[in-house]
Amino acid sequence: MLEYHKNLEIFGDIEEVSMDNYKAYLGNVIYSQDKDTLVVKEKSYILVQDGIVQGIFKDLPEGFPQENIIDWGNNLIIPGFSDMHVHASQFLQRGMGMDKKLLDWLNTYTYPTEAKFQDKEHAKKIYGLFVDELVRQGTLHVNCFSSIHYEASEILFELLLERGLFAFTGKLNMDQNSPEFYLEDTESSLRSTEVFISNYRQKGNVQAAIVPRFTITCSEELLAGLGKLAQQYGTPVHSHMCEAISTIKASKELFPNYKNEAEVFYHNNLLGQTPTIMAHCIFMDDDVVQLMQNPNCMAVHCPDATANINAGGIMPVKKLLEMGINLAIGSDIGSGASLSIARGIASTIQHSKIRNMFDPQWEAVNLSEAFYMATRSGGRYFNKVGAFDKGYHFNALVIDDSNFPGENLTSLERLERFCYAGDDRNIVMRYIVGKELII
Amino acid sequence: MLEYHKNLEIFGDIEEVSMDNYKAYLGNVIYSQDKDTLVVKEKSYILVQDGIVQGIFKDLPEGFPQENIIDWGNNLIIPGFSDMHVHASQFLQRGMGMDKKLLDWLNTYTYPTEAKFQDKEHAKKIYGLFVDELVRQGTLHVNCFSSIHYEASEILFELLLERGLFAFTGKLNMDQNSPEFYLEDTESSLRSTEVFISNYRQKGNVQAAIVPRFTITCSEELLAGLGKLAQQYGTPVHSHMCEAISTIKASKELFPNYKNEAEVFYHNNLLGQTPTIMAHCIFMDDDVVQLMQNPNCMAVHCPDATANINAGGIMPVKKLLEMGINLAIGSDIGSGASLSIARGIASTIQHSKIRNMFDPQWEAVNLSEAFYMATRSGGRYFNKVGAFDKGYHFNALVIDDSNFPGENLTSLERLERFCYAGDDRNIVMRYIVGKELII
Repeated sequence: MLEYHKNLEIFGDIEEVSMDNYKAYLGNVIYSQDKDTLVVKEKSYILVQDGIVQGIFKDLPEGFPQENIIDWGNNLIIPGFSDMHVHASQFLQRGMGMDKKLLDWLNTYTYPTEAKFQDKEHAKKIYGLFVDELVRQGTLHVNCFSSIHYEASEILFELLLERGLFAFTGKLNMDQNSPEFYLEDTESSLRSTEVFISNYRQKGNVQAAIVPRFTITCSEELLAGLGKLAQQYGTPVHSHMCEAISTIKASKELFPNYKNEAEVFYHNNLLGQTPTIMAHCIFMDDDVVQLMQNPNCMAVHCPDATANINAGGIMPVKKLLEMGINLAIGSDIGSGASLSIARGIASTIQHSKIRNMFDPQWEAVNLSEAFYMATRSGGRYFNKVGAFDKGYHFNALVIDDSNFPGENLTSLERLERFCYAGDDRNIVMRYIVGKELII
Repeated sequence: MLEYHKNLEIFGDIEEVSMDNYKAYLGNVIYSQDKDTLVVKEKSYILVQDGIVQGIFKDLPEGFPQENIIDWGNNLIIPGFSDMHVHASQFLQRGMGMDKKLLDWLNTYTYPTEAKFQDKEHAKKIYGLFVDELVRQGTLHVNCFSSIHYEASEILFELLLERGLFAFTGKLNMDQNSPEFYLEDTESSLRSTEVFISNYRQKGNVQAAIVPRFTITCSEELLAGLGKLAQQYGTPVHSHMCEAISTIKASKELFPNYKNEAEVFYHNNLLGQTPTIMAHCIFMDDDVVQLMQNPNCMAVHCPDATANINAGGIMPVKKLLEMGINLAIGSDIGSGASLSIARGIASTIQHSKIRNMFDPQWEAVNLSEAFYMATRSGGRYFNKVGAFDKGYHFNALVIDDSNFPGENLTSLERLERFCYAGDDRNIVMRYIVGKELII
């Protein structure tokens, strides 16, 4: 294959090897470099070797094997989305009970829906549909809960693994303040969590997480035990924090010795000691913000869920971005209704604008910032996903927006339109580590 | 057909006629009786004669012709949606430029996009796509603008007529404060409007409307002339009012002799003298509210558009509903991105919740209120549409939500889920005056 070598200079620092195991994906490439920078490379080739991005180029060397070029024409190629907070076990209840308040909604809809996952056949069926819908919506990186049931959590883990997704997933923990039909005792909750995280530490790109539901449903004994496990196994942690005025008040009554929920987690080794993903983070005072500025911590904004369940506020996204807190977007099914993170991008921007109307201190979020949260920033705890830097996994979506009429549009305008007005029908291909994902 | 007569008592006060020209649509029927009452009739027949609803019944009389029963099984049957504020001429630009402010967005995106409708071929193509998309999204009743161009406005009128939709549509008027390439002189604006409303007073279920864009782009001479035409021809009026802090300020500078935009319209016979539809109405003081309490006036809430363009506030929907102001929902393409009024229902509720977080004086809107706005209330100026009362047109959508798993759900839960998580794929049939509308 020596004839390629003379053209290799255009590939930059790619080693001088045969081109046969390279693939080149041609399209209009967009990804986030940082929150303020969207890289746009129109009509360019993403060069991929064994599922890993090697670079993006305007041209290929003479003699590059034609059969290794995948020509997506005028379509957009963007990174797969990262959905960093979603309850797989609530997939059945999305879009219902939205006129209820959080705690009432949990008792009427959520706990009975989750309790059904004791039945393994039910778990197989519903989690199968859930993972299919993730893929359909272009979510290739996900941080999702199961229920409190060990077997259902295993099933969800295996389904994520089977599809090749990059994921954290865990068995929920709750040993208090829940209905009798959906409650664990502290000891068995800890025991089954340890079995789960030791059996499922990491397989493929899926990793077990420790998932205390929120402080209200966990005794301090349980939290302390979970924190110990997290440290012992180096396991990531996923929970809810500073979500609603009602939950903050209830938590304060349950944990009077701590200033806030963040302290409860922190002192029990569940905040920042290992990678920690906290959903919501709407009401954070300066102490909490300081804890969350740890690079091991991420706050997940769930715009639709927050609006639906009337938490009492909207995350001050712009402020947290400027303070350097790692941010992501979550669909938060079932208080969110849609698994589309593209729609989550539009909602993040919209809700930040409405927030700004009533609290003008912080500007609204823009497309670059929201797209960054939904891709690169959201994917930061997985191994090199959510962007097309050299060395990143080629986890990508091809966006065909030819159903929208329009002339002389920039690729960025088309990306924006897809987020606001498109849907899963516009995603015509999904790649994970360079392999086609079939829906 | 005497054999039917003995069973007619179950039809209530239907005249004693043959059943042969009746059709019976079987499904789970939902419609609004008023803002607080959703009528739900599960597994019932909507009896329709020549496209007009005769009643809803649990059973049919013995001998009702089997071939006249249309069995939609477990599907929902709901009224078609009413989109009461939408710019057909902005169909090409939806979902783009959303990070801009209103006046900047108008100059960069909107005026150049609308100016292209001088070309009749362009108008035919884009308006054709627009009307197709209305139908696809289940919007059967619509109040839409064209551009300032007479011929394009004719084309839009004819396309709406051809599809059998119930519609108001008009030629935009603007004789000041617009770019040179998209501006009329006062006299020709008035002349072409008069020709339009006299030629297109009413054909089928489509009626011409008088459409001053907003006070900023209309001289008082133009407004006075349009008001005179409205009175002379009894033509409905459609415009924007009390939309954004920036536009209110600009209007105040242009019309210093009036207290507010509503007075400008009112004193020029463009507010309540004929049926009047005003988009936005976000910032209304008591004087304006009083003018809008006229039964001839309707305010249109455009939730997505308001959020996208950062108007500075959200319509206080609950307050206006309780004050008895007629309210509707508008997609407001192109500052809104989607023609789905189902999505508009969910956004109306969500945005009212966010508004309530920051301004707790007025509660959030619920599903019943938002659905009422989107169907019956929105359709009130058309002739008996948006509900299934006896005598109403059978303008209906059949909703198949079998792609959502779920057991033992009520029809109302399924309606809510469709609005929050469904899309046009769930609409499997559209009827207009009892006829199937093919997409």
